[in-house]
This record gives sequence, C-alpha cells and structure tokens, in this order.
Amino acid sequence: MSLKIIKGGTVVTAEGEARADVLIQGETIAAVGPDLDANGADVIDATGAYVMPGGIDPHTHMELPFMGTVASEDFFSGTTAAAVGGTTSVIDFVIPGPQQDVMEAYRSWRGWSEKAATDYGFHVAITWWDESVRKAMHTLVHEEGVNSFKHFMAYKNAIMCDDETLVNSFSEARELGALCTVHAENGELVFRLQQEIYDKGITGPEGHPLSRPPEVEGEAANRAIRIAEVLGVPLYLVHTSCIDALEAVTRARLEGQRVYAEVLAQHLVIDDSVYRDPDWRKAAHHVMSPPFRAKEHQEALWRGLQAGMLQTTATDHCCFCTPQKEMGKDDFRGIPNGTGGIEDRMSVLWHHGVGTGRLTPSEFVAVTSTNCAKIFNIHPQKGSMAVGADADLVVWDAEASRTISAETHHQNVDYNIYEGMEVQGLAKVTLSRGRVVWNDGDVRTERGTGRYVKRKPFANYWAAQLRRNELAEPTPVHRG
Amino acid sequence: MSLKIIKGGTVVTAEGEARADVLIQGETIAAVGPDLDANGADVIDATGAYVMPGGIDPHTHMELPFMGTVASEDFFSGTTAAAVGGTTSVIDFVIPGPQQDVMEAYRSWRGWSEKAATDYGFHVAITWWDESVRKAMHTLVHEEGVNSFKHFMAYKNAIMCDDETLVNSFSEARELGALCTVHAENGELVFRLQQEIYDKGITGPEGHPLSRPPEVEGEAANRAIRIAEVLGVPLYLVHTSCIDALEAVTRARLEGQRVYAEVLAQHLVIDDSVYRDPDWRKAAHHVMSPPFRAKEHQEALWRGLQAGMLQTTATDHCCFCTPQKEMGKDDFRGIPNGTGGIEDRMSVLWHHGVGTGRLTPSEFVAVTSTNCAKIFNIHPQKGSMAVGADADLVVWDAEASRTISAETHHQNVDYNIYEGMEVQGLAKVTLSRGRVVWNDGDVRTERGTGRYVKRKPFANYWAAQLRRNELAEPTPVHRG
Amino acid sequence: MSLKIIKGGTVVTAEGEARADVLIQGETIAAVGPDLDANGADVIDATGAYVMPGGIDPHTHMELPFMGTVASEDFFSGTTAAAVGGTTSVIDFVIPGPQQDVMEAYRSWRGWSEKAATDYGFHVAITWWDESVRKAMHTLVHEEGVNSFKHFMAYKNAIMCDDETLVNSFSEARELGALCTVHAENGELVFRLQQEIYDKGITGPEGHPLSRPPEVEGEAANRAIRIAEVLGVPLYLVHTSCIDALEAVTRARLEGQRVYAEVLAQHLVIDDSVYRDPDWRKAAHHVMSPPFRAKEHQEALWRGLQAGMLQTTATDHCCFCTPQKEMGKDDFRGIPNGTGGIEDRMSVLWHHGVGTGRLTPSEFVAVTSTNCAKIFNIHPQKGSMAVGADADLVVWDAEASRTISAETHHQNVDYNIYEGMEVQGLAKVTLSRGRVVWNDGDVRTERGTGRYVKRKPFANYWAAQLRRNELAEPTPVHRG
Amino acid sequence: MSLKIIKGGTVVTAEGEARADVLIQGETIAAVGPDLDANGADVIDATGAYVMPGGIDPHTHMELPFMGTVASEDFFSGTTAAAVGGTTSVIDFVIPGPQQDVMEAYRSWRGWSEKAATDYGFHVAITWWDESVRKAMHTLVHEEGVNSFKHFMAYKNAIMCDDETLVNSFSEARELGALCTVHAENGELVFRLQQEIYDKGITGPEGHPLSRPPEVEGEAANRAIRIAEVLGVPLYLVHTSCIDALEAVTRARLEGQRVYAEVLAQHLVIDDSVYRDPDWRKAAHHVMSPPFRAKEHQEALWRGLQAGMLQTTATDHCCFCTPQKEMGKDDFRGIPNGTGGIEDRMSVLWHHGVGTGRLTPSEFVAVTSTNCAKIFNIHPQKGSMAVGADADLVVWDAEASRTISAETHHQNVDYNIYEGMEVQGLAKVTLSRGRVVWNDGDVRTERGTGRYVKRKPFANYWAAQLRRNELAEPTPVHRG
Repeated sequence: MSLKIIKGGTVVTAEGEARADVLIQGETIAAVGPDLDANGADVIDATGAYVMPGGIDPHTHMELPFMGTVASEDFFSGTTAAAVGGTTSVIDFVIPGPQQDVMEAYRSWRGWSEKAATDYGFHVAITWWDESVRKAMHTLVHEEGVNSFKHFMAYKNAIMCDDETLVNSFSEARELGALCTVHAENGELVFRLQQEIYDKGITGPEGHPLSRPPEVEGEAANRAIRIAEVLGVPLYLVHTSCIDALEAVTRARLEGQRVYAEVLAQHLVIDDSVYRDPDWRKAAHHVMSPPFRAKEHQEALWRGLQAGMLQTTATDHCCFCTPQKEMGKDDFRGIPNGTGGIEDRMSVLWHHGVGTGRLTPSEFVAVTSTNCAKIFNIHPQKGSMAVGADADLVVWDAEASRTISAETHHQNVDYNIYEGMEVQGLAKVTLSRGRVVWNDGDVRTERGTGRYVKRKPFANYWAAQLRRNELAEPTPVHRG
Repeated sequence: MSLKIIKGGTVVTAEGEARADVLIQGETIAAVGPDLDANGADVIDATGAYVMPGGIDPHTHMELPFMGTVASEDFFSGTTAAAVGGTTSVIDFVIPGPQQDVMEAYRSWRGWSEKAATDYGFHVAITWWDESVRKAMHTLVHEEGVNSFKHFMAYKNAIMCDDETLVNSFSEARELGALCTVHAENGELVFRLQQEIYDKGITGPEGHPLSRPPEVEGEAANRAIRIAEVLGVPLYLVHTSCIDALEAVTRARLEGQRVYAEVLAQHLVIDDSVYRDPDWRKAAHHVMSPPFRAKEHQEALWRGLQAGMLQTTATDHCCFCTPQKEMGKDDFRGIPNGTGGIEDRMSVLWHHGVGTGRLTPSEFVAVTSTNCAKIFNIHPQKGSMAVGADADLVVWDAEASRTISAETHHQNVDYNIYEGMEVQGLAKVTLSRGRVVWNDGDVRTERGTGRYVKRKPFANYWAAQLRRNELAEPTPVHRG
Repeated sequence: MSLKIIKGGTVVTAEGEARADVLIQGETIAAVGPDLDANGADVIDATGAYVMPGGIDPHTHMELPFMGTVASEDFFSGTTAAAVGGTTSVIDFVIPGPQQDVMEAYRSWRGWSEKAATDYGFHVAITWWDESVRKAMHTLVHEEGVNSFKHFMAYKNAIMCDDETLVNSFSEARELGALCTVHAENGELVFRLQQEIYDKGITGPEGHPLSRPPEVEGEAANRAIRIAEVLGVPLYLVHTSCIDALEAVTRARLEGQRVYAEVLAQHLVIDDSVYRDPDWRKAAHHVMSPPFRAKEHQEALWRGLQAGMLQTTATDHCCFCTPQKEMGKDDFRGIPNGTGGIEDRMSVLWHHGVGTGRLTPSEFVAVTSTNCAKIFNIHPQKGSMAVGADADLVVWDAEASRTISAETHHQNVDYNIYEGMEVQGLAKVTLSRGRVVWNDGDVRTERGTGRYVKRKPFANYWAAQLRRNELAEPTPVHRG
Repeated sequence: MSLKIIKGGTVVTAEGEARADVLIQGETIAAVGPDLDANGADVIDATGAYVMPGGIDPHTHMELPFMGTVASEDFFSGTTAAAVGGTTSVIDFVIPGPQQDVMEAYRSWRGWSEKAATDYGFHVAITWWDESVRKAMHTLVHEEGVNSFKHFMAYKNAIMCDDETLVNSFSEARELGALCTVHAENGELVFRLQQEIYDKGITGPEGHPLSRPPEVEGEAANRAIRIAEVLGVPLYLVHTSCIDALEAVTRARLEGQRVYAEVLAQHLVIDDSVYRDPDWRKAAHHVMSPPFRAKEHQEALWRGLQAGMLQTTATDHCCFCTPQKEMGKDDFRGIPNGTGGIEDRMSVLWHHGVGTGRLTPSEFVAVTSTNCAKIFNIHPQKGSMAVGADADLVVWDAEASRTISAETHHQNVDYNIYEGMEVQGLAKVTLSRGRVVWNDGDVRTERGTGRYVKRKPFANYWAAQLRRNELAEPTPVHRG
C-alpha cells in the first residue's frame, strides 16, 4: 500500500492545534504525531502550513434539473472545483418531482453522480406523500445508506411540502432515526408576494428579494422547529440566511431542543444591494433562495456561527450560466435560482472568519467539516484526523492569497459571486482518500474516483432524543 | 331626561385617579368633577368606592351552536351575569359554517342577540373563501358596523382557516381597515396529536391538553403575526394562554409591529392540574381551547399584562352544562370546548391583579375596558368617562369580598371554574347607558334593552400602519 | 377672567383624536367639545390643525455650571425657545457639588430659575452621602415639591455616585415615595478608557465616543435596574441612547418591574459619524454624554418608543457656544458636554415619528407630554386636556414645514445639531397657562411669568410597588 | 514501563463513541482502537462499560482558611474522594488575604497541596491591588504555570474586589494571556441585605438566600462581562446558579463574546426549599454562595448546559462539619459558606443528565472534563484520550447504581447534600496517570502521588481575541 507523510505542519482539528506530522497508508490515516518516521513514504511538505480535515459541503446541487433547465456543474466538474478549494466531500440532493417514484429519482441521481471525483452522499427530498413514499423512506435508510430527508416549505405548485406531509414525514423519520431537514420559506406568502410585485410592474431581479423577505423564512423556520419539537425529532435547517430564522433556531436551542442549522458562505459576506445593481446580469446571477439580505443579517449570522447556534457552512452550489439566467429576462420568477461557490467556500470563510478573529482555526474546522460529519453520522470516517479515518486532508496555507474571479476559477459557470474579492488562506494540497487531487496549482482529479458514502441512521444524538420522548409519554387518568 | 349623580367616589380611568362625582343625563355622562351639583338628580352613593368605566369583554360565545350542541348561556342570561360582575358590553362572534353564506350567519346571530340586556357587537369569522365571502366582508364593514374578522387556525375539517384563506382575508381586511383576529393553534398538529393520544388509550379529559401543547399555540401565533407583518396589517390574538405565544407577540411588538393580544382571566389563575383531577366532571368542565397551562405560564402572562404586551382581558365565555360535557364521556375529542366566567372576570382580575400589586387601579381599567374600546374603535363612546360617553359605569367596592360558587352565580351553567375562590373587590352598582342594572344584590336587567354597537373601520392605528406600508412600497430598477 | 377659544381643530390627547373646540378661562381649560359656544371669547383659529397638550421636557440644564464654564442658555431664553417649538414645561436639575450642602444648591437653582417664561420644576442630584443629604431629601420632598432624585453613575472624581451611595439614596427614596433617576454610564470604565485613548494620541472629539461605548451605558443601566429591583423602588433612566441600555430596560419591564426610560430626540436621528467629521467645530458641538451612536441604535430606539419600553422624550438641553467647546481643543476630555435642541424636539419627533408611520398623533402626545406628567406626578394638571387642567396648549400645523438652522433658531447658542434638517409639523400657536407665548412667528414670552410646579410624592404606581414589597416580606423559620 | 489495557468497553470522548480498547504505557495512553493486542499487559475489563477521560473539577477549596475556620477536607482526602467518583484532576484556589503578599499565599497553598493523590493546579485570587500584585501576576504566569486569576465581587470588607481593581487586573491579564474568572455577586447589595434581614429578626439559615437573591448575581455577572468586553479579554464565570446570570452569559455569547461559564452539580438538582427545612443542621449545611435557587432556575441551568452556554461543571467543594457550621448558630452571617460533593458530581450529572436524555455520553465528557481542559489550556494532556495524553481515565458502569449517603461517602465531612439520592451510573475503575486509584470498591490512592500541573498562558482562543482587539484599534481624525 502506498505510504505518504505530511511533514512539518500544524495539525488543526475541531479539538485543537498541535505541531505534528500525518502518516497516510493507502486511503486512510495511519498516524498523527510529532516527528513521525517518514521512511519510504512520499513526503508532502507542510512547513509553515496547517494540516486539517478536508471540507465537507452538506448542500450542493450538481446537474440539477430545475425551473426548466439543468444546473451547469456536473458531479465531476463540481467535485473537482471543490477539491481545488479544499473541500473533499459533498452531500447532494435527490429531488423527486411531485408524484414521481422516489426510488426511481434516487437511482437517476446515483447514476449521474458516478462521475464524481471525490466522495459524496445524498439527502432525499420528500415532495409528496403516499404509501409508496413512506416505503421508500424505509428502503433508503435500511438499504441505501441515506439518513436524511429534505422538505421544501416553498415552491408552491411544484415541490412544496405542506404541513400535513411534513407531519407525516417527520413522524416516519422518527421511527427510522433519520434526520429531517427543511428549506424554510413560507411558500404561500412567497407565491402571493411574487404575484403582487410582478403586478406592480417590478419584473427585474430586484423583485426576487422583495418576494422572499426575511419574515417568510423566519416564519417557516419557526414552524418547522415547532413541528419537530412536538413530534420529538431532531431537525436541521438548510441555508439560514437571516436574523428572523436565526432567532427561531436560537430560541429552540436555548430551550434544549436538538435543532441544527447551516449557513451559506455567501450569506455571510454578500448583501442584498446586488439586486439593485444596474447590471441585470449581475443582479440575475445573485438570484437564489433565500436571497441575499440587508447587511445587519450578515453580522448576526457570524455571531450565530461564533455562538454555536449555526453549526455547519455550505454553498447550495447550483450553477446556471448567463443564457440560463436569461430565461427570466422579462419576469424575475423565471430566473433559475442558484449561485456557485463550492471552490471558494473554505477561503472565504477563513479570510472573513479566522482572519478577523471571529473564529479560531479549530472552530473553522468544526464549521467547515467536523460538525457536518457528526450531524450526518459519518464521523470519524470523515471530518476527523483519527487513525483509521479516510485521508481526506488539506494542507492550508494561511499566508497565501488570491483574487477570486470567474476567469480563473475551476467551476463550470460563467460568473462568480465573489468576483474581485481578495482572500488570504488557500488550499495548497488536497487529498481525497489518500490521493493528491490538487497540488498547488495542479489539478489532478479523475472522473469516477469518488465513492458514495453510506450513512447510518440513529446518529449519537438520537439516543438522547428518544430518551426524552420516552420520559414524556403520557399516562391516562380517566378510564372510559 | 333622567338625571343621576354618583357621589363621593374616586373616579379611576385608564389615565389616573381622582376624587370626583359623575353626573349622568339620560344615557350619557354629563360631567365629571369634584363636588358636582346634584340638584334634582338621583344620588348613587359611592363613598369609599371607585367609580370606573364598565368592563368590556371582547370575547364571548352566547348560545353558540358548537360540536353538536348549543352553549347554555343566551344573550339575556349572559349579559345579565356580566352586569352583575361589572361588565357592561361584550363582543360576540358570528361563526359561519364551512360554505355557509356569511350574511345569512350574520343575520342569525343578530336575531339571537336581540334579547341582550346590555350593549354588544360582533366579530365575524372567516371560515372559508370565495367571492361571496369577500363581498360579505365589504357589506359587513360598510353597512353593518363590523370592523373585525376572526380566523380559526385550529379545528381541522371544521372551521379551520388555512394559510391561503388567511392571506386572502388579511389582504382584504387591509383594504377595509378592519382588524384581523386569530385563534392561534396549529390545527394540523392538534389533529395528529388527538389521534395519537386517543390511540394510546388516553380517552379522558387529560388527553385534551396533551393534544394542544403550548408549542402548537406558539407556532400558530408566530405564523399569523408573520403573515400580518408581511401583508402590512394590524393583528389581534385572542386568548393568549402560554409563554410560547406571548413570546411571539412580544418579539413582534418590540420590533414595532402593531400586534394586540388578549388574555383570559382564567388562564391567569388556573393551571393544568385540573385535567388530572380524579373527578371526570371537574376535568371535563375545564376543557377549552387553548387549554389551561402549567403554572409557569400564568406568571408569564401576568408579566405580559404588566408590560403592556397583552392589552385586553376576556373570558371566551362559552358555557356547557354537565350533560353536554358528557357527550365526550368516552372520547375527550367529543367534549364541547368552553368555560364560563363572564360574571367573575372583573373580581378575579382585581383580586389577583390589583390586590397583589401587579396592576394599579388605572391599569385595571385599561385592561378590562379602555384598551379594548380603543382597539375595536368604540372609544370614547365605551371604555371612557368622557363627557358625552355612554354611561356604562360601575361603582367598585375594593373592600367587599365574596366566595365564587355555581350555587350563587347568575350564569346559566351548572359549574364554575373558580368554585371556592374568595375574591376581594366587587361591583356594587352597575349602570348600562345610565340605567342601573345591578344594585348591590339586586339584579335589574331587562331583556332586549341592550343595543347593537356599530364599530367604524380604520381605528387610529391604521393611519400609522398605512403610512408605513406606503413608505415600504418598492420601486423598479430593471425594465424589461 | 379672560376667555379664549381654540376653534376648528382636531383635539389629540394620549387617549385619542376628535374634532373639538377648547375653551380656556384664565389659566385653565374650561371645556372641550364639538362646536362650543365662543361667545365673548378671543378666538384662536385651529382649522386644519391639531390641538394638543404642550410638550414637557423632563431633562434640561439651563445656565448649568459645568466643566469650568456655564451653559449659555438661561431659564428665560431657554423656556422661550421651548415655547417656540411647542414645549410648555421643563424639569431641570439641581446638581450640588461633592460635599456641597444640598439645600444651598437647591436655593441657588430656584433663584436662577425665577426668570423662566413657562412653568418648570427640578430634579435634585444626589452626588454624595451623609446625614445632611438624607435630611435634605426629606425637606425637598415634604416642603419643596421635589419628587425625583438624580444619580450620576459617571464622572469619576466629580459628581459620580458609587454603589454605596446609590443604595443609600434608593433606600431613602423608598420611604419618601420619590422617583430615583440615573445617568447610566460606568464611570470607572469611562475614566480608564479616556486615559487609554488619550495616551494613544487620540486627542480630538473622535476620542469622546470611543471612551464611552454603548457597553458602559448598558452595564450601568442594568446595574441601576437590578439595585432598584432588589430594594423595591421604581426607577427612571435618563437619556437611553443605545441597544445595550434599551435591552436592560426591556428585560426588566417584561418581568413586570416598574422601570421608566427616556430617550433624547437627537439620539433618535443623529449617528456617531459626526465625531469623525473633519470639521473640529462640528464634531465638538456633538460632544455630549452619552454620545451619539452607530445607526443601528437609532432604529432600535424608535422601536423601543413604539413598543412602550421608552416612555418619554427629552433633550438634555445644555448649550455651550463654540468658544466654550474650544476649552477642549487639545484634549477631548476638556470639551464641555452638551447639545441644545429644546426648540426642535417636537418637530423632529413629529416629522420622523408621525410622518413615517412609527407613531400615531396620540402616541406622539403621550411620549412628548402625557407620560412624563404621569411619571413625575403632575398629571392631569400638565400633559392633559382635562377640564381644570393648566391651559398649556399647542396648536400644531402638521402640514407646515421649516428648515432648522442656528441662524434662525431662538436658542442662545451658536450651533444647531439639526442644521439643515427639513421638518414637517410645527407649533403654530403655543399657550402657557392660557397666555399666548408664541403665535405663528411672533414670540410673546415674558421674563418671570413661569411658575415653579410642585410635584407630590407617591405617584400612582407607588401603591402597586409598595404592595409588592409588602407581599415579599420574609418570615423567619429558625429561631436563635 | 508498566503496560495496561482496558478491554471491551465503549470509548466515549467529547467527539463521539466507539467500541475500542485502550492501551496504557506507564503514565500515558499508548493506543486506542478496536481489538488491540494485550500481550503482556494487565487487563482491566470494561465489558459493557464506557471508558472515558477522568473528570476535571475546576473549582475546589481543599483545607481553605475561611470565615474563622478551615475547610475540613484536605488535599489528600479530597482528591481521594474525587477519584472514587471518577474525577482525576482539580483546580483549587490560592486566596491571599487583603494586603497579603500574593506569592507568599501561593507558596502556602503549594505546600498544603503536596499531599494530593491526583493531579491539580491553582487559580490565584486578586483581592487587592498594588504594584506587587501586578508583578506577582507576571511571576505566576511566567514561572509558576498559573494561567487564571479569580475575582470575588462579593464579601465586602474582606476579599471583595471593586471595579477599579477589576479593571486593573483584567487589563494586566490581557497582557499575560491569562483567563480572568469571577465570583459574581454584588457585594454592596449583599452587605445591605444581610443587615436588613438580620435587623428584621431573621437570624437562621433562611436569611442566607434572602440576602443573596438571583438579581445580585445577575447584576455582577453582567458587570463583569461588560468590563471584559470593553477591555477585550475572555472571561470565565464560576458557579453560575440562576437565570439572571445565565441570561447575561447567553446575551454575551450570542454576540460573539468569549465568555465561559461554569455550573455546579448541586445547583442543577437542589432547590432553595432546603433553607426552610425545620432542621437547622440541614439548612445550615446548604449555606453556600451563591445559594440554592427556586426550581425554575434548575431547569434553566440544564438548558444552558445543553445549549452550550455553560461549558463546565464543578463542585466548589468546600467542606465544613456541623460544629463549624454552628459558628453561625445565632446569626446566619457567621455560618461558614460551603458544601461538599466532589465524590458525587460525576454520578449526579450522569444520572440527571444522560439518564434523562438531556445529554449524550459525549456531551457528558465535554462538560465534566474536556471543555475545562481546553479552557484552562491543559488539553490534550488532560480531558482527552489522545495518544500521548495522561492516562487519567475512568471505566464507567452506566447500569450500576448506589444511594448517596454521608455514612458511606469518602469525603471528610459529616454531611452530604445529596443524602438519600439514588443515582445510576458509577465509576467502576479510576486511573490517575496510569495508576489504578479506585477499583470497584477498593480505594488505592496514595498521599503525594498527585502532581502540580503547569498551565500555559494564551490558550487557543486568545489569538482570536487579540486579533479582534487589533482590528478595533481606533485611529485619530483630528490633530491638536
């Protein structure tokens, strides 16, 4: 088996920092410690650099069919761009159409994803309900290694999941030990606002954020949290973008509820002024849901991340090129929703997080990798530097810097929302299960070397949740 | 015109206290001041007592057809009991069945209410939606003096109003200047929980609160508040019973939103231990929605009242006698929901509110009368002691006390939820538009002397709300 | 006795609005109602205008000796400027030096204030403690009509009041039924920060806000509130300027504590960018404590006002001309603290409050006049339109506008912090106890016609406070 | 070197759980993994049990001279009792008297502690201020391995530290990279209340909690937090006992401030009814500061622990026997403050935390050991199961149970505050640096085998704090 050693760096994990070498045997970590014997191993020099678990992005949409087109980034190009930026795993989404057979959709996505260059998994969306959907949940958990289900509370008349379906799915997930996740926006209000705004003659991208104000996200976040609380299930909110939703999460967590929440790198650093940019193309390329928010939300999200109210960072990587965006030239409702960023997430977060003293390097690892691995139950295989873990690693140069641009990025899309941003802190070398896939400017990914990662149900936190449910069981007083 | 003078008391209004006499000419107040000339007037002695505006109860259900029976208290008996306790006006509810013609329902209630002994008005419930309902809202506001509409977020498969109807009705009310009110409980969750609990073999009244935990109220309260915020309408929550809903109200008010909230006297002083009382009859007589709550909610509600987060106090007076309650002997879901208390509200609130130092006498008047009159736009005709106002007055003896009991009360129901409670602070004399209807033990109400009170739309707070909506109007950036 | 009638206007009070005339007999209001008989009365035309209680400013410093100079505005010029803007009463401060005899200081201020043109009263500061101070508190309350005492938690080595003195004074005030008020800033931290910042070479006015960040105000506000809570006394915070202090107030009020808080008009509309203006004079003229804050604090303060967490608005009117400000040319610590604004408060608040839909006209009256009168126990003599109340009135033209400028203002100071601000909503006619003192451009005040207003202790809220204290009295379990 | 292997257990760390063996070579951990080769090693059987890092108690007072007596537990007996319960390290306190030479006090404590059976360290209290104290802080950090300083905000006229000293010490600690810790109670209020309550004839232990209500802790907690925020230093609150203090911590953490807080096991499970127990001895044995609180505080503290607002659990182990407690027989102010519990902490927290589903086993390890090690910068040497870490381990039997009693405990005190409590979850075997010190009923500690643990300054979080301070450095605008 091949032997590699990463020498001379500072190993940083969610637990702390220490000067140490890392020995890799084949696909896994064989040893971590100071001054390891490198005899016979290929040496990767990490002098002056950090060595950390590769990033995990729990929210991507490669080659997603959506709003009449298909996302431009495929599983190979997308995981390649990820690797360049220091991210070594993604969790993508299977999204069945309304009434579509869930297993059929699942198999389609598994087929598309075979070209991936790094490891990956899938959340599966519950977009409708009948007995076949219920059964599919069981099959996916017991046979396919899926342990999380997604629910869209927006997109009325398409993939929106009403309260009745939420209640059904959450109840089923409780039996399965699977984690419920939600896209939190009140679809009924969005639908009404879209129409009202369009009817007022606002047809450009500036209409998009007006139709999805923070309040509609706050409402839905709170609703999902309350339903989860009443039914006794853990919950995970994707792309928390605003104070309103963050406060709902915070309230619940302060009351001891097992609610997890994700924030996108772009929501931390970009504000909603982009939609009023006179350049339609720029505005349209920022159309995603939830939209970018006024500045005060960004500071609040950073604080949520610092305080542990938000545990994971993601990208919702979902790329559409300009011609695709132009499908909504005359009506913002027709602009495909989505932005890229999988290549930039780690650098953007390091620069604005660690570089500003908001986060320690350890906290950076926790929010870009380890917390995600724990929540979705692939720790310590992923997100750790334990002996035996997959050697998904990144050598991080905290001094190097670059200017982000669509002209130089590796993402398969003709726009970059961070265009012109200078960031300090870059992936120097990235390893995926022991293979070097990025080496200081040299892209070495290969189509199809990524592997599907099965995730088991009943992550650690379930035992506590189920114990609480058990203690809350009611007893009768009156008999008929 | 008849002339009466109330002499020697301390006049207390929402504004303050002062020693003063009150001169009444016919149905209205003619003068308020120290040492008024009583020449030719009948003298009502108020020495040592307070004189204040009569109570207004914004939430009653006289002779309501509900859950297969009809509430036992009719408009005459109910307004009589109210007068005995110092309450001189009520606002009851017109509740059309699903698909029932709204105006037809309205006319039924107007017919039933003609027997009332004191003044009254109606909120009208929106339980479904089509063009006829929309038109009825206009007719009611423009021709019938209705300025508030009620929405039940619970009671699935009956009168529950889904988000789509809420959005339609709230939008229409914005055009009309009418106040939207909501019964906040997530009906989808209640429905699920009722079934789950029943299936676990819990069939007695103890199942009732288990199927309607505070979280379902908190969720719905927040949802309604968010929808109102997004659509730009004021909102009024009926019977706020728990911390969860209070926090939603508080958050919104602290952000400057025009949200009003009501609390029932009984939720302030009775806790949920009643449902686990071995006496089925006692437990069943406490079945109402939202249910009684654990003790910590009561202290929180008092604080909400003190802090001005809750502005009004009501009873949700809806009486069912024991044989009616027994319709749910084998299944708590069949127990008609409702409790009485219109006779006791004022004394209970004085005793536990003023007697404990939580409220000043002025604050008591505000929360039992004046705030309600302002919110529902019948101030200063009601709820004030202004010259020209209706002489709906009560002479209040703060030293007198009584023990509440079904055996002595004037309510037409065979149970009293305050049974055995000793309260200090009683109505000594009550006047309805200048007529003495209660005189220290002597009931003098007459069937049919109560008058329907028309309420105009666009109460004062609407101008501010509409100005804010106007300033928030979006402008286009991009043209097609 | 002279008879005047204000005809054709809309009377607005803290209670509501109505079309009504106002009849004035001598110094007091004789009648309020529609179409009053004006026979023999001088008519003041209020067609198209509002008629409301004159403003009360609870926080002014006329001719204050401070930081080595004396405030430029005296009691005559200051009350004149107030009248022009629609304010008809002020409460100023007696501030004894450390170890100065309190009664001696009180007599000095009473002498200086005799030149006032409108009515006034005094808070008295407790700046040190011994038996003579304790006795003076009794004399002031029982003989001099003082019912409020001020405590400076900042200004170390000058008038700062440490915790021991706070505890002594608050305890004494509890016996007297007098209201404790505090200037909330942690003087120990301010002192340290001033030195640190100066030592870093920051000597200009930009050093002032750096030495008094919001946190030092939040700390002190919370400390004073907690001390008041533990000792069982109501509390009043002057010039709440930031989120940190507002949150302390809000927390306490939501828990039912009787805490009142004031906000200055200028803190609602001016932000801290003024201190970094390259014009030293401009920056220096904004030096006051607490300083102007970052923008987010202003929106929060407006919300606090809307939600009732802040009850009064004031100016802390304390004028220093440019040569006085220049005493601190080389060291920001030497710039006399203070800004003007008594003439502009009402218009600024109307324009930014009512004009934006944040406040209704009734709420405007409450926060500029009535609430203050109630808290300091001069209601309904002041701040109301009750029959018998002092005819301190203003005819308010909501359509008229003006541009604020030092060149045209009536304040005795060479700078105006609102310079160039256009405001809509002006006092057209102002009456002080029935005399017209401002008539649409014509200043008619006279030196010495203002009267000292005695304020009684034990305002209404004290009964509730004392009842709570009584119920909280502990009882012994173990005997020695 | 001796070789031991713990076989067959489930290793649980702050990071997660897994079936694994643990190999110990001499004093440190040599390997962790499934099915390790046990050749030649002494086998410790952990079948069916958890294996975890030994507990660390960051707050003990062995043989403390206090209130005229000396705590009964010495360093040997105390660390022995700790070991029995699964705790393998403590951090005790050096508390110089006012004006006492700090280094002299330090040397006294180092002398006393030489008898310890397990490892230990010291926080040093700053009880007064002059240049010698400042210098001692440097010496302690640079030469003695002390990285934390304690500040008592209570105990007026004894060891209380006023704001001036707090500001001096916090500023100095910022230079040193040492962590400031505070005992948060407003000493001025406590002093006043003690006198008032005693003067009312309340002389028994029930007077103790009355003189230290939650508000005095909340006030001081907030004050310390604000001072730390303004000065730019991390902060650690010891023994957070109430909602009031927890809310101050929570507010700060949600704003991104680096505030850490500790909770005592006893505050989580015992309420203030103990003080009103008719048995004086029982009441007196619960006299500690802060005192036990009303029940609602306990649920809030659990939630704070679950939400990560509280990071560590401790005991404030400070034992006084009945004759010592009787020093305050006639005056509660004379009862020595303190309770025991070091032996019971781990079991009490497991039973009430893990057994109720509030905490997962991993979270238990975090709050009993790992978080403390990180905060006080002795991780991964302590609080981890990393290869190379000290073999301070405990084999935990989650099924075994015992009834706590003074008759059977190993603490050197004649009372146990948990008397009669049955707890499930016990230390079966405890190892201190590889030596078995407790083996299922067999106590094997030896006097003097414990070692003083030096702690380095500038724990990981300091880099982030200092970076933030740097970015907040002001720049001048105006030049003199």
